[in-house]
Amino acid sequence: MSNDAMPQDDRGLLLGDGLFETMLARDGVLPDLTLHLDRMAEGCVALGLPFNRAAAEALCREATPATGRFAVRLTLTAGSGGRGLDRPDPPAPRLFARAAPAAPVTTPARVVVATTRRNEGSPASRLKTLSYLDNVLARNEARAAGADEAVMLNNRGELACAAAANLFWLEGGRLFTPRLDCGVLAGITRARLMATHPAEEVAAGVEALHRAEAVFLTNSLIGVRPVSRLGERALEPHALVEGLREALAE
Amino acid sequence: MSNDAMPQDDRGLLLGDGLFETMLARDGVLPDLTLHLDRMAEGCVALGLPFNRAAAEALCREATPATGRFAVRLTLTAGSGGRGLDRPDPPAPRLFARAAPAAPVTTPARVVVATTRRNEGSPASRLKTLSYLDNVLARNEARAAGADEAVMLNNRGELACAAAANLFWLEGGRLFTPRLDCGVLAGITRARLMATHPAEEVAAGVEALHRAEAVFLTNSLIGVRPVSRLGERALEPHALVEGLREALAE
Repeated sequence: MSNDAMPQDDRGLLLGDGLFETMLARDGVLPDLTLHLDRMAEGCVALGLPFNRAAAEALCREATPATGRFAVRLTLTAGSGGRGLDRPDPPAPRLFARAAPAAPVTTPARVVVATTRRNEGSPASRLKTLSYLDNVLARNEARAAGADEAVMLNNRGELACAAAANLFWLEGGRLFTPRLDCGVLAGITRARLMATHPAEEVAAGVEALHRAEAVFLTNSLIGVRPVSRLGERALEPHALVEGLREALAE
Repeated sequence: MSNDAMPQDDRGLLLGDGLFETMLARDGVLPDLTLHLDRMAEGCVALGLPFNRAAAEALCREATPATGRFAVRLTLTAGSGGRGLDRPDPPAPRLFARAAPAAPVTTPARVVVATTRRNEGSPASRLKTLSYLDNVLARNEARAAGADEAVMLNNRGELACAAAANLFWLEGGRLFTPRLDCGVLAGITRARLMATHPAEEVAAGVEALHRAEAVFLTNSLIGVRPVSRLGERALEPHALVEGLREALAE
């Protein structure tokens, strides 16, 4: 473990071998810390890495400023290793946490559909891993198109998620979201929303978004963020989405 | 640029945003340095990152010991950034190079087919990026099965590559290799081999390997490595593969 600079033989740096969580901190409190640690613990099982939960929790708390709204990012790398893909046995993960100011997002999102696909054929597509380049490339596509965020399809052409958020839409008054096996992170805000507003989890093509009355994004920092533009199409504010946004605002 | 430890805000570490090359060094000489720098330059164009080729070349040369056989790894990260996926404008990449002893590989490979798929729908699947977790997971699968290396299929079920090598096979005396658009790195040894022994570049399912007379792997460090076992099937040494192995041995 380390809270300093990373050695150049760290497998997180060299191979994207590791996980992260980004959680909201308000005035020194991490309301969803347990849920984020649960998810990192599950990710470590999936990747075959040990997880020192007590150390991770302590690092998150230490990184959290006493006042203000912050994003606290917890990073776990697979630790140092030799040359090549094989991990040392046993691996010795490194953990660190950092906070960055995170003002609430109050504007709706302009969204485009990225050409970069989500890899539904890898367990990593259901995890928040350090191998996040596909998401970076999708976001770059959105910025290049003058948009805020990208919708990602998987290789089957099914809706998966946004580059840094889960995806929901309303059609015929019904709420939908992509199934996890489409290559979707089990988002904490996604789960919270579905606990009160059950959504149908589906494998749907992009045409579902074009038919939708409303589209919105969720993650731990933005809560619910309405989509105001999808490619060339403008989407009007929708009362149900506004209600969800207010209910989940933090 | 830095040749020291990595800051914790480096996007290579946090997001796998960057590239690498691994090249062979023999007695202070890097015979394929130009080809590796060419490939990193092309990767930087694909990722939208600037590339200081002169600095990269100097770092590789400085890292190379005067005697012995080494693997020199050149790493380029997208540099430091703020929170989230968006790169700073302009990005300021970091470069570093390290050498590790690399004895010639003289044993054939026992190979299994991994369940972790290659993401043919991302440009990253044709690049050597810092987001290499899918390859790590595929290699883990191979090790867990008592094998040396994993064959990876893409999401269409087509053969792509091994976790850390290109893939070739012989069927009816003809030489085949996966097409680049199956999610394949344009390997330097792959290209060298095909310059003298043209292979048919195909989109083929795993059954092609089961029908093959011989299967082998290539990369810059192993040259040509025959496959002696594919799952439960033993493969006998093959004269053509042995000839290629000797012709490309370094």
